[in-house]
Amino acid sequence: MKKVKITPVKGMRDILPQESFLREEVTQTIKKTYLSYGYAFIETPSLESLDLLMRGEGGENEKLIFNILKRGEKLRLQEDALIKDICDYGLRFDLTVPLSRYYANNRQALPKVFKAMQIAPVWRAERPQKGRFRQFYQCDIDIIGEKSVAAELDLMTATTEAIEKLGLKDFKVLINDRHILTALLERCGFEKESYDTVLIILDKLDKIEKEGVQNELLRGGFEEEKVQTLMMLLEKATSLEELKEELKGEEVEKSIEHLEMIMHTLKGKGGSFEVLFSISLVRGMSYYTGTIYEVIYKEYPFSIAGGGRYDEMIGHLINEKIPACGFSIGFERIITILEEEKRGIETTKEKIAILLDSPKAYPKALKTAQEYREKGVSVSIYVTPKNMKNFLESLRTLAFTHFLFYKEEGSELKPLA
Amino acid sequence: MKKVKITPVKGMRDILPQESFLREEVTQTIKKTYLSYGYAFIETPSLESLDLLMRGEGGENEKLIFNILKRGEKLRLQEDALIKDICDYGLRFDLTVPLSRYYANNRQALPKVFKAMQIAPVWRAERPQKGRFRQFYQCDIDIIGEKSVAAELDLMTATTEAIEKLGLKDFKVLINDRHILTALLERCGFEKESYDTVLIILDKLDKIEKEGVQNELLRGGFEEEKVQTLMMLLEKATSLEELKEELKGEEVEKSIEHLEMIMHTLKGKGGSFEVLFSISLVRGMSYYTGTIYEVIYKEYPFSIAGGGRYDEMIGHLINEKIPACGFSIGFERIITILEEEKRGIETTKEKIAILLDSPKAYPKALKTAQEYREKGVSVSIYVTPKNMKNFLESLRTLAFTHFLFYKEEGSELKPLA
Repeated sequence: MKKVKITPVKGMRDILPQESFLREEVTQTIKKTYLSYGYAFIETPSLESLDLLMRGEGGENEKLIFNILKRGEKLRLQEDALIKDICDYGLRFDLTVPLSRYYANNRQALPKVFKAMQIAPVWRAERPQKGRFRQFYQCDIDIIGEKSVAAELDLMTATTEAIEKLGLKDFKVLINDRHILTALLERCGFEKESYDTVLIILDKLDKIEKEGVQNELLRGGFEEEKVQTLMMLLEKATSLEELKEELKGEEVEKSIEHLEMIMHTLKGKGGSFEVLFSISLVRGMSYYTGTIYEVIYKEYPFSIAGGGRYDEMIGHLINEKIPACGFSIGFERIITILEEEKRGIETTKEKIAILLDSPKAYPKALKTAQEYREKGVSVSIYVTPKNMKNFLESLRTLAFTHFLFYKEEGSELKPLA
Repeated sequence: MKKVKITPVKGMRDILPQESFLREEVTQTIKKTYLSYGYAFIETPSLESLDLLMRGEGGENEKLIFNILKRGEKLRLQEDALIKDICDYGLRFDLTVPLSRYYANNRQALPKVFKAMQIAPVWRAERPQKGRFRQFYQCDIDIIGEKSVAAELDLMTATTEAIEKLGLKDFKVLINDRHILTALLERCGFEKESYDTVLIILDKLDKIEKEGVQNELLRGGFEEEKVQTLMMLLEKATSLEELKEELKGEEVEKSIEHLEMIMHTLKGKGGSFEVLFSISLVRGMSYYTGTIYEVIYKEYPFSIAGGGRYDEMIGHLINEKIPACGFSIGFERIITILEEEKRGIETTKEKIAILLDSPKAYPKALKTAQEYREKGVSVSIYVTPKNMKNFLESLRTLAFTHFLFYKEEGSELKPLA
């Protein structure tokens, strides 16, 4: 038989048992929290039509789709064929686009205000690099059909609680609103067409500081006066109170009121994290229409969760405006942090290996095993291998705590120390 | 923006919350049972190289692969291009081929006897038909590295226990061994080359009975004498004892001994199911090398679980013989049965909807919600919608049991009856 590579395909990973246990524990903790808030599990296929995936709402991710070749008679190869001619489906690059389709397709069967939870893999054909994979899990909650700030309040209390339950403390929740960003740029006198460019530069405020932003804008050819106004406003934007003085208009006032309510609610609930308004929080996705937020942890250079309001996306699929808001936990990033902080599997639980001298002893050893299992202990029966030392060593990596050699009359449990 | 279809892609499904809850419950029950037997979670990417997937061990499934188009410079379209020229990966069609690659790739980090559990989707581009989908979950346990019957004993006690815990009683476990089938055909005098054809016909014994098998064989041009011998042996094959008299040879005797041990062990453990030897159990996959088994339930025309020993498959990837044995629960079939038997979500658990007259009440209502949540109750806060009747109705489908209108001084919990 032909030799084949036994490594996973480029940019994807095999997950070993030790990490799988941790991933399972994290998944269960998040699920439990979201269930306690009344979010419902949903599931969509991993494949979506390219028509849906390539509507322009996925931004850069649309360039990273794994395309699925058409099958059977539908497939006609030609020299000048385009991908769209020979492929019909793609692997989803996020969970938001599929959720929008799901809601549009099933809304008759769903409550008017729908709280959904999804923990599932997505795929992006990115250039592989350290810590970035081509298949990774996302963990999203969304509320569809709620236009009031109650949606943001619910998503944010639930998600911060989930992060705390994972054992991460002292994280920061940054919040902003697209309306505030728009009002800010308008007030400075930037042209509508240049908003995106200015926002990309503003997004770097944390890294390059005010002076860097100023220089980059001036180098980009923006007028001195506009840039100076922006600098002045950034000064004031450390406080929502002061910003309120500068940015007028019904929409921006409502946005500021919402941000204040969010801060008030999260602080009132208590917890070991801060909630901060951040004028330079932009978030890339073009589909956001209102509140946006992000969670950062210690000195990690990436956010561990993020989301916002996207009131237009579902409306683009059906002829009806449907408000929506979501929060996504960066599952893989959480795993990276927990592994780096060496929070592994809880080893307080007993886990026993029973070793037999012959498979014939299995039926009787099973009785012993069942007694432990009924007490909630995990028990694995093995026929004693030749190399005992190596075997016991490998059991330790699977979090076994004890072993016993099975003997008909009374076996002695020994710690795997 | 262009109109797109909002239905899932052909042959795949959106899963609604009611079914998702059931799926989650079933998943957790199976996981818990397998964890108590010491099986470890593992995970492989959904994509594998076409080289691996198309090695001939996947049988008919290899024709059902969703192929992934090459990306970037690697992609060169030509009129006479073959799929293998323009595609490099495919979506996995089962969990056994990826597991074999996983073990081959990671065996240095895994115990000599490795007990793995996988619950994950697979994809097959089948012609869509009722009850058959193009994306579906498989739920496999495998023991790699154990050549003795202890592997079968462990897989079969664990899987029958999992099925019982799902609430299915009175199922039947059918067992057979490829060595017995080979010895049977040899004893009748069939040519080696015709074994596959004869087995395909023998597989139909349950449906077309002995007479049907006989007729089909004769029509197929097999000699009367061979067919008559087979008929005589099928008569005896209702009992392993009698069969032992007829089929000699070390290997077949060992196989019969193993089957007897399996029956003895499963009966000894107790449970509301039967274990039966079935000479006509063939199981299609060409990679099986020894024991094979299947679970059937009531009058359902499909098996709800199945598996067997495959001692050659991993050896084909690395230069070393590695014994392996697996058992796969038909997850989607179990869900179908549970839904038909109307075993839905446990509704004994309290689940409360708190209704607010304004989002401003959220922070205070959150305190009430947290008190219930700490007691393990799921609580969801909503702003009261205009159409209350419809909304309460939709909450009922999500298994909410109570609701309350939030009032600052004391709200009354009302049943959602």
